[in-house]
Amino acid sequence: MDFGVTMYGEIITIGDELTSGRTLNLNARYAAGRLTASGLKVNRITSVGDNYPMVAEALRRAIENSRFVIVTGGLGSTEDDRTSEIVAKALNRPLSLDEKMFRLIEKHVKAMGITLTPSLEKMAWMPDGSRLLSPEGRACGFCLVEKGVRFYFLPGVPEQMRYLLDKVVIPELLSFWQTQAVHWRILKVYGLSEPDLAEIFRDIESKSGEVVLGFYPHFPEIHITLSMRGEDESTVSKELDRFESEVINLIGPYVFARGEQTLEEVVGELLRSHGLTLSLAESCTGGLIGHRITNVSGSSDYFQGGIICYSNAAKVNLLGVSSEMLQEHGAVSDPTARQMAEGVRKALKSDLGVSVTGIAGPTGGSKVKPVGTVFIGLANANEILARKYRFWGDREQVKLQSATMALDWVRRYVTNTPLLPGL
Amino acid sequence: MDFGVTMYGEIITIGDELTSGRTLNLNARYAAGRLTASGLKVNRITSVGDNYPMVAEALRRAIENSRFVIVTGGLGSTEDDRTSEIVAKALNRPLSLDEKMFRLIEKHVKAMGITLTPSLEKMAWMPDGSRLLSPEGRACGFCLVEKGVRFYFLPGVPEQMRYLLDKVVIPELLSFWQTQAVHWRILKVYGLSEPDLAEIFRDIESKSGEVVLGFYPHFPEIHITLSMRGEDESTVSKELDRFESEVINLIGPYVFARGEQTLEEVVGELLRSHGLTLSLAESCTGGLIGHRITNVSGSSDYFQGGIICYSNAAKVNLLGVSSEMLQEHGAVSDPTARQMAEGVRKALKSDLGVSVTGIAGPTGGSKVKPVGTVFIGLANANEILARKYRFWGDREQVKLQSATMALDWVRRYVTNTPLLPGL
Repeated sequence: MDFGVTMYGEIITIGDELTSGRTLNLNARYAAGRLTASGLKVNRITSVGDNYPMVAEALRRAIENSRFVIVTGGLGSTEDDRTSEIVAKALNRPLSLDEKMFRLIEKHVKAMGITLTPSLEKMAWMPDGSRLLSPEGRACGFCLVEKGVRFYFLPGVPEQMRYLLDKVVIPELLSFWQTQAVHWRILKVYGLSEPDLAEIFRDIESKSGEVVLGFYPHFPEIHITLSMRGEDESTVSKELDRFESEVINLIGPYVFARGEQTLEEVVGELLRSHGLTLSLAESCTGGLIGHRITNVSGSSDYFQGGIICYSNAAKVNLLGVSSEMLQEHGAVSDPTARQMAEGVRKALKSDLGVSVTGIAGPTGGSKVKPVGTVFIGLANANEILARKYRFWGDREQVKLQSATMALDWVRRYVTNTPLLPGL
Repeated sequence: MDFGVTMYGEIITIGDELTSGRTLNLNARYAAGRLTASGLKVNRITSVGDNYPMVAEALRRAIENSRFVIVTGGLGSTEDDRTSEIVAKALNRPLSLDEKMFRLIEKHVKAMGITLTPSLEKMAWMPDGSRLLSPEGRACGFCLVEKGVRFYFLPGVPEQMRYLLDKVVIPELLSFWQTQAVHWRILKVYGLSEPDLAEIFRDIESKSGEVVLGFYPHFPEIHITLSMRGEDESTVSKELDRFESEVINLIGPYVFARGEQTLEEVVGELLRSHGLTLSLAESCTGGLIGHRITNVSGSSDYFQGGIICYSNAAKVNLLGVSSEMLQEHGAVSDPTARQMAEGVRKALKSDLGVSVTGIAGPTGGSKVKPVGTVFIGLANANEILARKYRFWGDREQVKLQSATMALDWVRRYVTNTPLLPGL
């Protein structure tokens, strides 16, 4: 690929919170990843504080080196949001009131029942020659062209930045510069470690042809990308299909999703298509599984609800777990996981009941049951299963792994795939 | 503050994995945080790929703008580790063999029982006039001074970068430039928007003296920082105290935490110190509140558990919500929130019962009850309260705001602070 001729650019992120190390630059990473995936080359990422000399210098340098520039941050309504003003001065384009934006702000102010303050009005003032990026006002942000370089000014709020970048900026850039698109496949994997995968894939690179393999850990998942550049979509697609089959041959049961789908979305689709309902008995996960399940719109179709049985009393009173058994085996045990799963299935009259009980730490562990010991249970009308696992990491990591394992149990159970072996 | 005279500098991180968005720039954030905390000002962070023109441009620009420059990445033994070579060319200083480093590599090679390859030897070649940073060879890295600017070249491996930065680079910089440490306060706020705060704080800057005020949105919270430079800790501390009182005077009830504490930690401490137990009835939050509460170690002391009553059947069967009332008022209503709170308090035998029922969207809204309509309820032995709120945003944002509002209710209720007004 020759990037000398076309489609290279840079990212400038503005904010004292970045140069002081207070916050991670997630916006730059997101933008760089999305631009790269679209076949647009990012040559430089610069972070500067909210001050005139550094921002102005970065803008002027970008004009010399880039064809497009994504600038994020400093578009809000507070004192230190000064990007528009700085751009106006640096590029010698006086600020003028964008009527459209002003009306959108007025509308918003009315809807929220608040007053139109000068700081809110400020958001409607843009450097001369700017164009509003989201004409329906879903997010503030504008574009201007200076000496042939396309500048896109986006808000620092991640949701708004991502929305404008994906829906407006990248499509617009691609419409200007025809490029050899990069085609992607994503396979999401759970239950294999990075060294496991390295071992399994030791000889696969020789079969990859022009397909580039990438591994991206998203704890506790690993996302595998297959990417290939090419103009003829059907050739590229065939080649990606071929190599994807090679990968599936090696690790099929561990691949829980293709593309951008989350595990909870996959589980939801499976439950819906099999006409099954689910309920949860959560001890150490404390509600995390329910939270993930209900992040999916429409989950009320298959999710009945759950019981967060953090205390033993809750296990006994709400789930019918036997107090004698609890005394004998403890709350973190195989029989407790079984009785919880069966109890919640009956209490909520669902087809499947899933339970989690474990020691999230950092306290509460013992020699026999160290921190990270977790039992998962599953009950349906015919059988009750439970297995013991051992997870590592801090409290939140143990909770996250437990929740992911429980969701993966549902996926594997519904698709007749063997459950991951326990201890 | 005048940073024009001393101690300002910048960070340059090198690696294609950064400009392509493959990895998060944790090194830049760490270095920026450590330098800032040491009273050294970071003016700019630049990330460029492993290629000559961009790295050379960044180095030359640093000479014009900075007093010190931290460069990370590209010092390893692989093909794309080309920093030394690029620096040599860009600064016109031929590479020469560092005898000390060469002997350290020889020693390492012997100890590991491997062969001394050219790529390993490459690590001993440095630009003329460089000085090894770790004479005992714990990490490779070197320093050179060009036109009065101190350049520190550190490896990209985080452990090695951090070790050299903390043990060698920062102490050395501080020995050259006597500097004033920065002292921080953080106040975390919920219930005020950024425009609200801008309006309330319109005149406060005149009272801030040398204290610098910063606003950092962490949806749905806003974190306010007060920072001040100074040598005499007690003077600085008094000044920060004074200004903090000014801020508290204006927005006291909205400040839910000072420092790094989370809302769920604050709520946990309050429940513990007041000897109260809590249970939850979660509908639209789906378990998120329980998840957050149980992210705090030791939460079993005050958290009894909860019921995720996603279906109406769950509300009726597990919480004793009346089906006639549900038919009349709907699941998202004031009486439902009250019955849920009271029901879960009784079912789990806790002092406080808190409930959330609402429409998270994107579907399920109506004219009377649009998406984002949420009722919060709270019951204790003597009274039952409920209020209606309206949140904006997507499904996850509505859930997050609902959970934060519910936790803030507990904080306000336990501390006798008026609840945030409802609709």
